[in-house]
Amino acid sequence: MKICTEQVTFELPLALESGVTLPSFELMIETYGELNSLKDNAVLVCHAFSGDHHAAGTKDEGGKAGWWDQMIGDGKTIDTSKYFVVSINNLGGCHGSSGPTSLNPETNLPFGSAFPEVSVQDWVNAQRNLLDHFGISCWEMVAGGSLGGMQALQWAITYPDKIKKAAIIAASSKISSQNIALNEVAREMIRKDENFCDGDYLAQGSKPKQGLKAARMLGHITYLSEANMSKRFGRKLQNPETKMDAAVSYEVENYLQYKGEQFAETFDANSYILMTKAMDSFDPAKNFNQDLVQCFKHIQAKLLIASFSSDWLFPKEYGKDIQMSAIKAGIRSSYIELEGDYGHDSFLFRSDEYAASLQNFLEGRDECS
Amino acid sequence: MKICTEQVTFELPLALESGVTLPSFELMIETYGELNSLKDNAVLVCHAFSGDHHAAGTKDEGGKAGWWDQMIGDGKTIDTSKYFVVSINNLGGCHGSSGPTSLNPETNLPFGSAFPEVSVQDWVNAQRNLLDHFGISCWEMVAGGSLGGMQALQWAITYPDKIKKAAIIAASSKISSQNIALNEVAREMIRKDENFCDGDYLAQGSKPKQGLKAARMLGHITYLSEANMSKRFGRKLQNPETKMDAAVSYEVENYLQYKGEQFAETFDANSYILMTKAMDSFDPAKNFNQDLVQCFKHIQAKLLIASFSSDWLFPKEYGKDIQMSAIKAGIRSSYIELEGDYGHDSFLFRSDEYAASLQNFLEGRDECS
Repeated sequence: MKICTEQVTFELPLALESGVTLPSFELMIETYGELNSLKDNAVLVCHAFSGDHHAAGTKDEGGKAGWWDQMIGDGKTIDTSKYFVVSINNLGGCHGSSGPTSLNPETNLPFGSAFPEVSVQDWVNAQRNLLDHFGISCWEMVAGGSLGGMQALQWAITYPDKIKKAAIIAASSKISSQNIALNEVAREMIRKDENFCDGDYLAQGSKPKQGLKAARMLGHITYLSEANMSKRFGRKLQNPETKMDAAVSYEVENYLQYKGEQFAETFDANSYILMTKAMDSFDPAKNFNQDLVQCFKHIQAKLLIASFSSDWLFPKEYGKDIQMSAIKAGIRSSYIELEGDYGHDSFLFRSDEYAASLQNFLEGRDECS
Repeated sequence: MKICTEQVTFELPLALESGVTLPSFELMIETYGELNSLKDNAVLVCHAFSGDHHAAGTKDEGGKAGWWDQMIGDGKTIDTSKYFVVSINNLGGCHGSSGPTSLNPETNLPFGSAFPEVSVQDWVNAQRNLLDHFGISCWEMVAGGSLGGMQALQWAITYPDKIKKAAIIAASSKISSQNIALNEVAREMIRKDENFCDGDYLAQGSKPKQGLKAARMLGHITYLSEANMSKRFGRKLQNPETKMDAAVSYEVENYLQYKGEQFAETFDANSYILMTKAMDSFDPAKNFNQDLVQCFKHIQAKLLIASFSSDWLFPKEYGKDIQMSAIKAGIRSSYIELEGDYGHDSFLFRSDEYAASLQNFLEGRDECS
């Protein structure tokens, strides 16, 4: 599988939903496989909340496999011997695309709190430029899980003639009050870290690692199912010799401590805030008087909507809502409820049923009319 | 209704499960109604995680009603014209009983981190002394919700001849990996607050309010149901004029900010840690080779086990597990699944079905054989 990583600079203004216009912007991208001569084999994959452009393969010896490596590759579900897969780091992220860690040309310091709010719509508008960059007229598929699935849905709504298929996995057409509340607790932890410095920590040479760690610990609980945690950890006590913190008693506490620490080393706190705010505000029906059916009327793409029964963060009802609106709007769509052992995170892990659903959809072998 | 509030000093040693012995200890109690001449009308109510001894009535003009005021009072479910109700603040709490805010006689400073770990068993052992204090030989009922229900269950197990009825509401015989994980995130937020000072903040004239606030915000989400939050707040935006914090967008965020702030003013961070640790470690079957049926064999009290269908923190399966073990142990028990509009917090709010279930049980009119 051919893997290319590139930071693409777009020297054109991007008007954001917030009212702010970026005079230019950069997107970090990674591609897998090759674009064919007809340029009709391109698939865009959109990352979830804390993901990045590294979706597949292993870049360096001993390096980390991409977040969707189980699904993307030669002979895999999204077969890179056939498809040209484009993966991006979204605007506001912290892995090479324009975001709060980028240098603000006005101050020559990292943007920090000065980086504007971004939305799912903004991300899709930014990604739109990738079509011209590659000379592609239409994506064969846009796919993603969670916040990535929201982008796939927004693509189908905003650019009906630029996308043939949208795979909307473990996603929602708008999140619940409870989801917003959980995101707000995470933001509160970050903002109140003594090293947050109102968001300008990088300029001041510090990082709010404790807040970011605690936010991630909470996130982890919501990504996994209760059943999965019970199976993996139960009420097992932690071996005292491998405790991350003296106050830890149970294995599950130690696991969260470890995962949280790891994350806080590599992620940016402002990006965390921006990404959760984008998730909170996603609500494509807002421009259609809260009528999702009207919002879907002009969609031309076929939709695959997949939910996981063990997902309690974005439960299957969210997927069913999207499907019911698609049916009422008279557009082509197919809904599948998958088992999944990993709660919300199930979208990251291959199962035969999951892989077959997505592959049949991509290959046009599904029954979706 | 006669209300008496008293701080009772027990000048006797209390051996805690941790191995530490308190040479003496204080319990803050409040009583409602009057003990009859036979001394056979006493009911003990045990508070949940952040509750205290103030369970019913309103002490001062304009003051706050007790946490179970909907259920306790003259003519109410637990009728104080008939029953003598005793309510306590538990050991390790911060409302008058011995705990981390009490003065350590060895240092003449607040105990802080030096206050020993406490367990549900320790609480019940401490409460045991109230029988002698009042000259009561046996509780007519011990009742509580959530962590309070765990105490009611522990009473039935530890002191089979000192309790006639145990009302175990919205409780569990041991909490799940997910519950422990949520508690650990709350503790992490508190411990990493810059003002926590390894638990000795009071001695140093500070308080880890930010951490405690964030912990409570998270707690609140788990106490309410998703449906309740959707109904109360949905995705409504907060009026900019009444924002608790400029970063707040939605009403639900503002509500959590408000509730968290309020709580952080009145509760103690070390107590928060101690109470969650007691919840994590509760597991009466641990002394019976994890066999809850064996653990229940010697119970003489009748049990009422009540769960709420909207409770996702301590879901109804927890109540059913207790009931099934009671059935297998051959003890008298009755299980009821109630609707409840408030998720886990439903145990605090009266409904006709809830009130009738508890009253029938207390009055011996239930069918529980």
